[in-house]
Amino acid sequence: MQIGIIGLGKMGYNLTLNLLEHGHEAVVFDVNISAVKKAAEEGAIETASLQQLVQTLQAPRVIWMMVPAGDLTEDVIRQVSAWLEAGDILIDGGNSNYKDTIRRAGTLAAQGVHYLDVGTSGGTSGAREGACTMIGGNKEAFDSVEQLFRDICVDNGYLHAGESGSGHFLKMVHNGVEYGMMQAIAEGFELLEKSSFDFDYEKVARVWNNGSVIRSWLMELTENAFSKDARLEGLKGIMHSSGEGKWTLETALDLQTATPVIALSLLMRYRSLEEDTFSGKVVAALRNEFGGHSVVSS
Amino acid sequence: MQIGIIGLGKMGYNLTLNLLEHGHEAVVFDVNISAVKKAAEEGAIETASLQQLVQTLQAPRVIWMMVPAGDLTEDVIRQVSAWLEAGDILIDGGNSNYKDTIRRAGTLAAQGVHYLDVGTSGGTSGAREGACTMIGGNKEAFDSVEQLFRDICVDNGYLHAGESGSGHFLKMVHNGVEYGMMQAIAEGFELLEKSSFDFDYEKVARVWNNGSVIRSWLMELTENAFSKDARLEGLKGIMHSSGEGKWTLETALDLQTATPVIALSLLMRYRSLEEDTFSGKVVAALRNEFGGHSVVSS
Repeated sequence: MQIGIIGLGKMGYNLTLNLLEHGHEAVVFDVNISAVKKAAEEGAIETASLQQLVQTLQAPRVIWMMVPAGDLTEDVIRQVSAWLEAGDILIDGGNSNYKDTIRRAGTLAAQGVHYLDVGTSGGTSGAREGACTMIGGNKEAFDSVEQLFRDICVDNGYLHAGESGSGHFLKMVHNGVEYGMMQAIAEGFELLEKSSFDFDYEKVARVWNNGSVIRSWLMELTENAFSKDARLEGLKGIMHSSGEGKWTLETALDLQTATPVIALSLLMRYRSLEEDTFSGKVVAALRNEFGGHSVVSS
Repeated sequence: MQIGIIGLGKMGYNLTLNLLEHGHEAVVFDVNISAVKKAAEEGAIETASLQQLVQTLQAPRVIWMMVPAGDLTEDVIRQVSAWLEAGDILIDGGNSNYKDTIRRAGTLAAQGVHYLDVGTSGGTSGAREGACTMIGGNKEAFDSVEQLFRDICVDNGYLHAGESGSGHFLKMVHNGVEYGMMQAIAEGFELLEKSSFDFDYEKVARVWNNGSVIRSWLMELTENAFSKDARLEGLKGIMHSSGEGKWTLETALDLQTATPVIALSLLMRYRSLEEDTFSGKVVAALRNEFGGHSVVSS
């Protein structure tokens, strides 16, 4: 199958290699020319602009966007939609907010363009060797490109989840669950570290990965991390986040749904970004006010 | 190897079958005579009392207790220790509190008996086909029975974690992590259920199990549960707990360690046991007091 790929970052580049390996024809574009050249060396057809990419593809076109969610995705859609025709399929493989996806799908549907939202999990190794994808949008459009998903995903690793937005919604919730699972694992190791026992964390993660109830890919990654740095002394406990956890919690608030573990996982990430907190100062000051308890001066 | 087994409940019985299958000689006792008879039919040597079990075993004895933690375990230890001799090894395979374990190990050490604490994970299927065990206690005593663990556990599925108590501590924390992971998964599906999309939860769990970051044994069990009851309509969301989560949180408090996800996972279980809450009545009453907001009469 011929497919256009916009965005050759870590995910898009590995996805391209994965598609090429499965015999698909990949027509690629990225603003980073060296990424385009690198993909071309691997067998992709390079283009020099979004317009050239669209015009190189045979109609009905299939275009997979793998660009950062938000303004960049919005901008690429605005540009390419000017050249797209009825029957074309535009795929958003990024972590877009499902509300944006529903809006965009409506706009594109007006010009007869099918918009598929694809939540992608499994990291860069998954994009290269077998991903997990959750797909929303028109079922017939999905059926017409199902072979792509069969090829780039692990066995049973793709799902047409429902109407537009359902793929990105599922990926968002997946990430919320991921936050909670990661924080649970992390709190467990924090307790081991604070205990009076002298545990070998790599060995603990290994035994927990073999036969236990909490065996999981995240625990395998934990084992891997401790194998490189036995007590993680080389890094700080600063936990960044890229937005999907926040969206999950915002969605929980919209749906008035009690999700304390996902909420606290996100808030602990925010806490980790601050060396000291203003709320801590307020509590310390209040204890001093009512009880004369000592404060630590800054 | 000859081994005594006290307690033929779901875990102990399956462990016995596992040991027999690996060519070990199992001398068994349980207050439930039919369980003893059943094990005898499978090749175990039956005994009619704790005393007979101890006296049937050749010294140095190896005895594995698989009885409920707490008073029952305490009582069995009190009884059998009267007949044990220096050099014997007593194994506690239950979910005992690690503080009890440290105390018991000290008492038994005074009479030369080695006490090994074994946290066991993987459920009844693990006990039967390959468990995951975390072992604390004297290293030489462990070495002398290591073959047992090699036989009954999956590959890389056992770990001598350190001194007495470390095995049960590790199992306790494992269960705390399990609570957090389960709650995270559960909150994710709660969001799917509350959303306007129409997801097939079995298919969602399946795709999340294939190539995604959150693939795990717990997610496989989730897939399994939804395959039997697509929306879990046959059961109520009442979440019991058997104590290890509470101990994990108590330990976190003792160690002054922030474990919000484990804490909230436990508290959500307690919340699920109550149809209505007194705290809810208090908040509703207060909103009525200050703002005249309506209350729902009971």
